[in-house]
Amino acid sequence: MVNRSPFEEEVLSRIRPGREERAHIREVAESLVGAVNRSGKARGMVVGSVARDTWISGDRDLDIFMLFDPSLPREVLEADGLALGRAVAKEFGSSYREKYAEHPYINAQIDGLDVDLVPCYAVTSATTIQSAVDRTPFHTRYIQCRLADLTDDILLLKQFTKCGGVYGSDQMTAGFSGYLCELLVLNYGGFLPLLEAASGWRPGTVIDLEDHRTRDFPEPLVVVDPVDPGRNVAASLSLTRMYEFVELARGYLNHPLPAFFLPPAGIPFGRDDLVNELRLRGTMLYAIEFATPPYIEDIVVPQLRKSLDAIRGLLERHGFVVNRTDCCMLPDTCTLLYELLVDEVPPVVRHPGPPLWAAENAQKFFMKYRSAESQVFCGPFIDEGSYYVEISRKFLAAGDLLASDEILGVALGKHVKGALASSFGLKSGEECWRSELSGFLAGFFRKSSPLLRIQKDV
Amino acid sequence: MVNRSPFEEEVLSRIRPGREERAHIREVAESLVGAVNRSGKARGMVVGSVARDTWISGDRDLDIFMLFDPSLPREVLEADGLALGRAVAKEFGSSYREKYAEHPYINAQIDGLDVDLVPCYAVTSATTIQSAVDRTPFHTRYIQCRLADLTDDILLLKQFTKCGGVYGSDQMTAGFSGYLCELLVLNYGGFLPLLEAASGWRPGTVIDLEDHRTRDFPEPLVVVDPVDPGRNVAASLSLTRMYEFVELARGYLNHPLPAFFLPPAGIPFGRDDLVNELRLRGTMLYAIEFATPPYIEDIVVPQLRKSLDAIRGLLERHGFVVNRTDCCMLPDTCTLLYELLVDEVPPVVRHPGPPLWAAENAQKFFMKYRSAESQVFCGPFIDEGSYYVEISRKFLAAGDLLASDEILGVALGKHVKGALASSFGLKSGEECWRSELSGFLAGFFRKSSPLLRIQKDV
Repeated sequence: MVNRSPFEEEVLSRIRPGREERAHIREVAESLVGAVNRSGKARGMVVGSVARDTWISGDRDLDIFMLFDPSLPREVLEADGLALGRAVAKEFGSSYREKYAEHPYINAQIDGLDVDLVPCYAVTSATTIQSAVDRTPFHTRYIQCRLADLTDDILLLKQFTKCGGVYGSDQMTAGFSGYLCELLVLNYGGFLPLLEAASGWRPGTVIDLEDHRTRDFPEPLVVVDPVDPGRNVAASLSLTRMYEFVELARGYLNHPLPAFFLPPAGIPFGRDDLVNELRLRGTMLYAIEFATPPYIEDIVVPQLRKSLDAIRGLLERHGFVVNRTDCCMLPDTCTLLYELLVDEVPPVVRHPGPPLWAAENAQKFFMKYRSAESQVFCGPFIDEGSYYVEISRKFLAAGDLLASDEILGVALGKHVKGALASSFGLKSGEECWRSELSGFLAGFFRKSSPLLRIQKDV
Repeated sequence: MVNRSPFEEEVLSRIRPGREERAHIREVAESLVGAVNRSGKARGMVVGSVARDTWISGDRDLDIFMLFDPSLPREVLEADGLALGRAVAKEFGSSYREKYAEHPYINAQIDGLDVDLVPCYAVTSATTIQSAVDRTPFHTRYIQCRLADLTDDILLLKQFTKCGGVYGSDQMTAGFSGYLCELLVLNYGGFLPLLEAASGWRPGTVIDLEDHRTRDFPEPLVVVDPVDPGRNVAASLSLTRMYEFVELARGYLNHPLPAFFLPPAGIPFGRDDLVNELRLRGTMLYAIEFATPPYIEDIVVPQLRKSLDAIRGLLERHGFVVNRTDCCMLPDTCTLLYELLVDEVPPVVRHPGPPLWAAENAQKFFMKYRSAESQVFCGPFIDEGSYYVEISRKFLAAGDLLASDEILGVALGKHVKGALASSFGLKSGEECWRSELSGFLAGFFRKSSPLLRIQKDV
C-alpha cells in the first residue's frame, strides 16, 4: 500500500464518505434501479462516482441511467425516457424537472440527493453508441472492475483538482472530468505518481491505457478512451487548465500544504475595490450586459467566448487597445467585460485601398476619395504599391462604438446575437460593479495562477 | 515617325537643348577629353546624357570618365585618378573638390557646367569590372549606337519622371535612373508605348533586351542590364516609386495634361499650417534631430530608414501607436519624424513569461514576480500554458521614452547611432517646425500620389 503523509490521511478522513453516508446513497440508488427495472421498459444502472465509490463526502449527486432497447426510434426513447423518469420520481414522492443536455432527462430531489434519471440506449459496444450518454455505462464498467484499492487516490485527486479550480469538464471550466481523473490515477498507479508524471507533461502528451488509438488528436493532452479508441477523454481540457494542474502538481510535490485540499477563500471585492483597481491601473472598463439566453451553459458559454473575441476584434479594428477580456454567465444576465488601455483615439485614421495592379479597383478608390476631398485628411497616396487615404474616424471613443449597432455586425454566437439585438446595457468604470459580479470581478482583477493563490491563502 | 500631340511637341521645344547649348557642352566635353588624353595616363570619354544626347535643356551635368589601365592597383588608380582630375581642372582654371562615391573623383565648375572627372578601369567586358563605375562606359556605348531617333522620347520620359517625382536612383528617391529611362524607351520603342505597357505592369515584370538573364531577381521591376546579364538596372527602384510611375502613366494616357511635364508647385507650409494640421488630425508629432553624419547620402539614407523603423518598433513595444513616420536628410541635420495616435498609456502592462513546459525558467519567473508582489498589479497567472504578469510600465509618455537612452539600444544604422549617441534634440508638436523642414513637412501632411498632385496643380 501507498505510504501516505499524515496530512493526506487527514484529508482522506475528511473527504471519504462515512459508513452512514455510503449506506444511505447505496440504499437510494438501489431503490431507484429497482423502480426502473420493475417498469419493464428499461434496465436501471447506477453510474458516476457513486457506482465507482469515488464520490467526495457531502456530494449529493446520484446518476441513474435507464438503458432502453437500442432499436427504439430516438423520439420514442426521449418520450419513454422522460415518462419513466417522471414515474420513478413520482413514486419517490419527489419534486422533479425536465433538463436538456444532448437529450432530455429528469432531475429530481430524492431523500436529500440530487438525482439525474437519464435515458440511454443499451448498446453492445461503446463504439456503436447513438448518443454521448450511451457511453457512460461502459465507462462505469471499465473503472469499476479496475479501480480496486485506488479509490483513495481518486478522492485525493478530485479534491486536489476541485480546490485548485481545475475540476469540471463544463465549457466554462474546461478542466478535468471525474472520469478523466479516474483514468489518470489508473494509468499512473496513484495520486503521487500522477503528480510526478504531470510535472513533466508537454503539450501533446498521449496516454493510451488500452494501446488502441485509431487516430491523432489535436488537443494538448490526449487520454484515449479505453472503451472508444477514437475519442479523447481530455478533449475539453484547455491548455490553460492543463498547465494550471501541472503548476499545482509541481507546487505540491515541492511543498505539500493542506491548502491544496481546501476550497479557495473567497476574495471580497466591493465597488471601492473596483474604483481603486481602475485608478491604479489607469485603464477603462466596459461591461456589455444582456439577458442570459434560455439554453444550457455548454451551449451559451462557447457563444459568449466567440462574441467576446469578435467584439474585441471590433474594438481593435477601430484603434482601441484592449488589455484583457472575460465573460460571465449568471442565471439571469451575461456579461462581456473589456479592459482597455486606449479608450479614445484621434480623428485621423489610415484607410487602405487596393494595390495599383488591380487597376480597375484602384481607379475607383482614387476617384472616390479624390472627389470626397473635404472628408480626406491626406491622400490618396501610394505605399508599397497600394493606395491609402487618411480619413476621419467614425468613433473617437470606445464607449460610442460599444453602444452602437456595430457590435451586432460582428461574428457573435447565434443566441448571444439574439439577446443583444433585443436589448443590452453598456456600463463603464465603476458602474460595472454589481454584487452578483463581485466574485467574477475579483477573479479578473486579482487574477493569479492556482499555486500563487494557494500560497497566498496560507 | 511618331505622331506627337501638339503639346508634346511644345514640351519638346522647351526641354530639347538648343543649337548653342549643344555646341557649348560638346566643346567643353571635347576639350576635357583632349586634356585627359594628352596626359598619356588615361583615355578620356564623355559618358552620361551628354554622350547620348539625352540631356534636358538647362542641365549642367557633364560626366567625363578617365579610363586607366586595368592592371593598375586600386590605390594607384585612386591616387593617379585624383591627380589627373585635379590637373585637368587646374588647366581649365576652375575651382574643384574631391568627392567620394564607391571611390574618389573630382568635381569641378567649368564654363558654367558641373563637371565630374571620374577615374575608372578600361576593362574589356562589363562583366569583368572591378568597380561599379567601370560599367558606365559600356552603358554609354550600348545606348549610343541604338538610340537613333528615340532621343525625343527619352527627353519626354525624363521630364515626365522628374516632374512626377519618380526620377533619380539615389537612396532617398529610389526612382528611375537615366539609364533605366533609356532602356525602357528602347525596349518599348518610344515614350507612349512605354506608358501603355507600364499601365499593365505587375510586380515581378521582367524586361530583358538581350534575352541573356543568368539569374532571378527579387525586385518588383527587373530590367536586365544589356551589358551585364547578372545585374538588374531597376534594382534600386522601390515598389512605391514603380507604382507611382504606373499611376502617372495611366493618368497621362487617360487625360494628357501639360502639368505632367511641369515641375511641382511648391506647397507653402508654415508653422501655423503645422499647428492647424495637428489640431485637425488630433495626433502628436515628435522629431528626433541630430547632426548629419559626414558620409554621402547613399550611405546615410538607408541608415536613417533603418533607425526610423527601429525606433518605431520601440515606440510600439511600449504601447505607443504610430500612424506614420518619415525621415529627412539635410546638409547639417537629419530628422526622424513620428506621428502618434497614442501618446500616453496607462501604468499597467502585460508582461509575458515562459511556457510552463520550460519548467526551470517558469519556476524562476514565478519566484521573481511572486516575491516582487508590491510592484505587480496581477499574477503571475497562466494563459494558454504560459505565465504572464501585469506590472508597471517604465514609460507612460512617448516623449519620455524618446528622450531616454532606450533609443540607443535599438538597431540603428552605425553612423546614425554615433550621431545620436553624441547628442540629439527631441521636439514635439509645433516645435517640430523649422523653415528648412517646411517642404519635408508639407510632403508629410499633404502626402498625395503624383497624379493627385498633378490634378490639383491644374
